[in-house]
Amino acid sequence: MRPVIAIDAMGGDRAPHEIVAGALAARDAVGVDVLLVGDDAAVRAELPGGEPPAGVSLLATTEVIAMHEDPAAAVRAKRDSSIVRAAEVVRDGRAHAFVGAGNTGATMAAALLRFGRIRGAARPAIAVPIPIAGSARRQLLVDGGATVDPQPEWLVQWAHLGRAYARLRLGVENPTVGLLSNGEEAGKGDALRKAAYARFEAEVPEFVGNVEGRDLSRVAADVIVTDGFTGNVALKTIEGAMMGIAGLVFSVLDEPDFAEISGPIKLRLLEAASDLLPDNTGGALLLGVQGVCVISHGSSSANAIVNAVRVAAACVEADVVESLAGSLRRAAV
Amino acid sequence: MRPVIAIDAMGGDRAPHEIVAGALAARDAVGVDVLLVGDDAAVRAELPGGEPPAGVSLLATTEVIAMHEDPAAAVRAKRDSSIVRAAEVVRDGRAHAFVGAGNTGATMAAALLRFGRIRGAARPAIAVPIPIAGSARRQLLVDGGATVDPQPEWLVQWAHLGRAYARLRLGVENPTVGLLSNGEEAGKGDALRKAAYARFEAEVPEFVGNVEGRDLSRVAADVIVTDGFTGNVALKTIEGAMMGIAGLVFSVLDEPDFAEISGPIKLRLLEAASDLLPDNTGGALLLGVQGVCVISHGSSSANAIVNAVRVAAACVEADVVESLAGSLRRAAV
Repeated sequence: MRPVIAIDAMGGDRAPHEIVAGALAARDAVGVDVLLVGDDAAVRAELPGGEPPAGVSLLATTEVIAMHEDPAAAVRAKRDSSIVRAAEVVRDGRAHAFVGAGNTGATMAAALLRFGRIRGAARPAIAVPIPIAGSARRQLLVDGGATVDPQPEWLVQWAHLGRAYARLRLGVENPTVGLLSNGEEAGKGDALRKAAYARFEAEVPEFVGNVEGRDLSRVAADVIVTDGFTGNVALKTIEGAMMGIAGLVFSVLDEPDFAEISGPIKLRLLEAASDLLPDNTGGALLLGVQGVCVISHGSSSANAIVNAVRVAAACVEADVVESLAGSLRRAAV
Repeated sequence: MRPVIAIDAMGGDRAPHEIVAGALAARDAVGVDVLLVGDDAAVRAELPGGEPPAGVSLLATTEVIAMHEDPAAAVRAKRDSSIVRAAEVVRDGRAHAFVGAGNTGATMAAALLRFGRIRGAARPAIAVPIPIAGSARRQLLVDGGATVDPQPEWLVQWAHLGRAYARLRLGVENPTVGLLSNGEEAGKGDALRKAAYARFEAEVPEFVGNVEGRDLSRVAADVIVTDGFTGNVALKTIEGAMMGIAGLVFSVLDEPDFAEISGPIKLRLLEAASDLLPDNTGGALLLGVQGVCVISHGSSSANAIVNAVRVAAACVEADVVESLAGSLRRAAV
């Protein structure tokens, strides 16, 4: 049976056009059935002939949660929104996974509220794959922004969940874990990190110790654990720094001295950097909830949706939710 | 009278060679007297003829605090270390400012313990100038790593101190302030940020609201306030991301297709990026202590020391410590 992936057709800056195009492409490229969740007229306008083709179905909803709405309030108030309904069809067994590129907080909140938590999971965390320039390796940053102000023991849980997920996502048998801190030495960190460090040493397999901000951009550990506040700041800091440097490089290449010869260099740079683009990293999995929810970035193109659906389908086929639940049972944290 | 700048000659990965060379160069380039603090033989070995020339003096010390020693313990134990003695000569009025590129935590701890705090300052913070690619503008990140686990009211103090310093360092009459958070909206943030936001709105002039990680790399606010843990992670994250992209770009330019034509492009890129290098940003000022302490990065070259001495001399001449103290008196926080 082909997995059924529910896709929030209204989510993201480029919805519904790119989302629906991505869903149709993913149906063939990944080999899934897709359930488009969104405004009936808006989605049909993107479908050839206005009708869902084979392998595609449509769940009409009447509300949309905008990108900057307060997540918790919006999920409570807009019960017929595409985000809430997409989470519900997974809960109800009509789809196997939920892919969304809309309001990240609302997508996480809907998944948490509709799926519920896996047994023993205190709070959810989002596992964001970070590319490394010039390397095929990825690192998973956990938590990329689901839960701020965590307790130390939640970080321990995220380490276990992150390792279980890294086996599937990174194909690593025995994933290593680093704790993001303000120095490599064991004594470094704020109160949260110091408390977590002692527990990581005692409880987390393959713990390599503290890692630093610069380790986010080089091979340091398969799973890098942090609180959702720091994780969000770090991810956006990487994005900003990369954009800044990229802008500088391209402005130099466009200078009169180089403009005539730099065309092929620019093309090659774009190709070499393509692995670093958020469209190509494949979406982030929400860890700790009783279902598969893959979050793609807010400006997702059709290609980003294909990659996110690929991740979601792999999670369904590997029964990743059971693997994650098992990791917490065995660790008994 | 020329300001006297005490320089930790033993501090940094490239000490004492680059530090002493930088001190000698700064004497002429900045117009200061320098007091080299460090091991007598090691420092003399770097001086022409083994003797301090005019405008240079030497304070011999017998201990060195290594880069990765525990700061507080090392400052307590090594009373005749170059870091501790360099702070003491400023406290005792034999020098006007302390410049160090060694163990950052120990440098800050020595300055805090020997200088004391300015009246009303709860905790120190370090103001790190962040360059913006393609712009002459700088932003000051406060705190870059002096104080983890701050109270919300300390962030308010750092905003006032940061604004007072930005007037001198950035030459901005009415500096704007942003609060680093995990989203732009007022409701975003962890408990610390939410508590701080309300106080910033009420008490901090020119508060522009929350800024995000990507705003560290583009013009967002003159002063960006955060806790020392997040600040340290963000600074090292920027460094890592920039190095990653730079490595990717240069590896493409070295590919066989481009190697013959890319020489001038590489030179121009290095020139265009030179403002982004830590050697050229000029050192970070420790805010909240009763004296001038400028911290240069750990791999400082002679040029980095010249730039740090320039910042220190400007701080002395503008009586920045009194300006900072005045900002807290007026704000009465």
